[in-house]
Amino acid sequence: MEKFDLIVLGGGPAGYNASEKAAAGGLKTLLIEKRALGGVCLNEGCVPSKALLYCAKVFDYTKHSADYGVKVEGSSIDQNYVIDRKDKVVKTLVSGIGMSMKKHGVKVVNAEGYIQGRSDEGFSVKAGEEEFVGKQLLICTGSVPVIPPIPGLRENVETGFVMTNREVLDLREIPKKLVVIGGGVIGLEMASYYNSVGSEVTVIEMLDKIAGPTDGEISKILLNNYAKKGITFKLGCKVTGVENGKVLYEEKGQQQVAEADKVLCSIGRRAFTQDIGLDNIAVYTERGAIVTDEYMKTNIAGVYAAGDVNGKSMLAHTAYREGEVAVNNMLGKKDRMRYNAIPSVIYTNPEVGAVGETEESAKAKGLDVQIVNLPLMYSGRYVAENMKADGIVKVLVDKKYKNIVGVHMIGSYASEIIYGAAMMVETETPVNDLKEIVFPHPTVGEVIREALFEVK
Amino acid sequence: MEKFDLIVLGGGPAGYNASEKAAAGGLKTLLIEKRALGGVCLNEGCVPSKALLYCAKVFDYTKHSADYGVKVEGSSIDQNYVIDRKDKVVKTLVSGIGMSMKKHGVKVVNAEGYIQGRSDEGFSVKAGEEEFVGKQLLICTGSVPVIPPIPGLRENVETGFVMTNREVLDLREIPKKLVVIGGGVIGLEMASYYNSVGSEVTVIEMLDKIAGPTDGEISKILLNNYAKKGITFKLGCKVTGVENGKVLYEEKGQQQVAEADKVLCSIGRRAFTQDIGLDNIAVYTERGAIVTDEYMKTNIAGVYAAGDVNGKSMLAHTAYREGEVAVNNMLGKKDRMRYNAIPSVIYTNPEVGAVGETEESAKAKGLDVQIVNLPLMYSGRYVAENMKADGIVKVLVDKKYKNIVGVHMIGSYASEIIYGAAMMVETETPVNDLKEIVFPHPTVGEVIREALFEVK
Repeated sequence: MEKFDLIVLGGGPAGYNASEKAAAGGLKTLLIEKRALGGVCLNEGCVPSKALLYCAKVFDYTKHSADYGVKVEGSSIDQNYVIDRKDKVVKTLVSGIGMSMKKHGVKVVNAEGYIQGRSDEGFSVKAGEEEFVGKQLLICTGSVPVIPPIPGLRENVETGFVMTNREVLDLREIPKKLVVIGGGVIGLEMASYYNSVGSEVTVIEMLDKIAGPTDGEISKILLNNYAKKGITFKLGCKVTGVENGKVLYEEKGQQQVAEADKVLCSIGRRAFTQDIGLDNIAVYTERGAIVTDEYMKTNIAGVYAAGDVNGKSMLAHTAYREGEVAVNNMLGKKDRMRYNAIPSVIYTNPEVGAVGETEESAKAKGLDVQIVNLPLMYSGRYVAENMKADGIVKVLVDKKYKNIVGVHMIGSYASEIIYGAAMMVETETPVNDLKEIVFPHPTVGEVIREALFEVK
Repeated sequence: MEKFDLIVLGGGPAGYNASEKAAAGGLKTLLIEKRALGGVCLNEGCVPSKALLYCAKVFDYTKHSADYGVKVEGSSIDQNYVIDRKDKVVKTLVSGIGMSMKKHGVKVVNAEGYIQGRSDEGFSVKAGEEEFVGKQLLICTGSVPVIPPIPGLRENVETGFVMTNREVLDLREIPKKLVVIGGGVIGLEMASYYNSVGSEVTVIEMLDKIAGPTDGEISKILLNNYAKKGITFKLGCKVTGVENGKVLYEEKGQQQVAEADKVLCSIGRRAFTQDIGLDNIAVYTERGAIVTDEYMKTNIAGVYAAGDVNGKSMLAHTAYREGEVAVNNMLGKKDRMRYNAIPSVIYTNPEVGAVGETEESAKAKGLDVQIVNLPLMYSGRYVAENMKADGIVKVLVDKKYKNIVGVHMIGSYASEIIYGAAMMVETETPVNDLKEIVFPHPTVGEVIREALFEVK
């Protein structure tokens, strides 16, 4: 039985990154992954969706090029090519992770891992036919889509009529009518893609807004943009059943039917903790997610958990950081996880980038904040590159300490701009010091700088 | 004679921004501008060039869309539309500045300003037929293109065969052959535009590299990209004469001729300090530029200068900040100008974003730095959105203090990413603290985060 300092269960963002860092820190590390390295994020989530969305963006450019003086005779998109290209992108990146594991001396076993128990030597883990022992354990088994007990839903997942995040990224035929159940990030990104490539898209959302915890005003602007592009939004509607070819839902007490060639079920994800042997070492879970503290420790000494499996944030970049925090603590370095400065992005067009408190969350917590709200039209670049666009940036400033506690943007480049805002929130730098940072001109990001000067 | 607390000479980025801030700070402010508000930057520089470049980018998308599964029957660009649209963009933004001046209570006089002298009451300035007195003076008269004494050059500027940054943005007909003298930022951006829209472009540069002080490796990657796109680069070549229809230059001692339908002269800019009455109050200049200290003060008490006119950095965003430093000092707030964390961008495709020391400048200064150099292919988004691209990020870290002293990028979104790097350089945050910043995934910016983990 080969022995390791650390066994990592699950090779998604939390697991592969932590393995790399652990090995770099001198720990003999084993990474067990049952499917492909990169996890859901790389294989059937964040990255492949971006490959699709970028093709759709190019297609959109060809459709709206006249706004920029470019005449196009006619354009069409080849869904098969798009999917093939996406597969290549994923393959390139998966193999990149494999090479990085090799470079760092991480042993990778491609099998399902199962925690068998604990002995004086450490934790015993079975992977396929092999058995390993690890002094420490990092559980990064991720999450799976929630399939709620709606009549007909599970059956229609099996027939293929209803898709999850996995199947929607492999669709070779563009559905004429697509119904998306759940207007969160995954639902919206896919609605956006299929809207661009020609599907008639309906989004059914139980809440009275789209994009989950996104700032309400930004959520509305996003909805307006996509309503204009032709997506039908059914807010405050509850899906009551799925039959072949249709989705039944309730709107203001009335039963309604939405016809569909395909359905995407994207109402959320839950931690994956089943059948991995957690009970054998008595790791504590709550509502199916592993409970972790700010050091990413579980209730069992030597057992850590990072990523979606702890159910805290369900974002790949949170997973990276949690994995790092876990490894730092294993290595005796002081580090603790904080969740107040984690950015989030929706890769729609316009893009949404956000970090920290929203207007709503600040109010709910009773924070005393000033809210600066500026149109992106204050940016010369934004005006130069957009036609009649309605992007904004909202900056929330703590009135007492004069530091930034939230930034929310909708508009071009928001995805790439928001990390700097995360830095502002994380470092708690006073606004007066931030004013001394020089932003390049002309950029869209400059509007954040302008907002600083509106702080009283 | 109306009296002001502050008279600002020149309504470009330094001048209009300083006027706004001064008025917000309680100073009765007069802004004198002889042409349009916004200065060269907004009217014939940074912003209109971005309007053009974005149209070219859209055109490029239609030409290379097949790489992304999008079939386009045929595309063409309408130069007249592009120029008209650019004019509208500029008009919108100029009027925006006008409104902002009004809102802040800044009086604007549209005339040529001339400093007449000094009395007990302050500085007397003539603007058109009117005379004003200001207790303090802020000189922001900007810069003009350098037209060197090359035989035939000045004459051909007059005939219109040779253009400066002004005329090149108003060209209604796409030249079949364009020769660009000077491969700096302006030259490259315009070379890029006309290359995209179909001109045969030759760039003649005296140095052995393009893009001026840009990091040598990044400069090479940029050159390779544009060489592949069909631009001819003549490095280490000296222009010796201009005649109608041709540019004469010396290459390795041999006389050569480049045929041209139009020529862009973009070899640099110089501070504009002539005929504004500087001598009347004895403001000290060196090689035509006003000498300023770190508070933006000139040698004369009460007289400040900001922007291109001091010849220090020649960038719009430097001008903004210098104007703010000047005003803060007028208002008795502590503030001093630093030039070590000013980002710069080249809006080519791929884009270049840079801040701080380059490999070359660090070596020249004898700095002890670690250089981390990573391909942008480390970013999932970059792989998802690019085909065979060669972007990189270089991060320079001070070995002793472990803070970042330079970041240099070439690739998508570099323009919008670089401000965060400027924040890292400006705040001198140690790398170990920066590692705790969470960057959203998948973004191109993440490669900067990856670089942090390569620091020894």
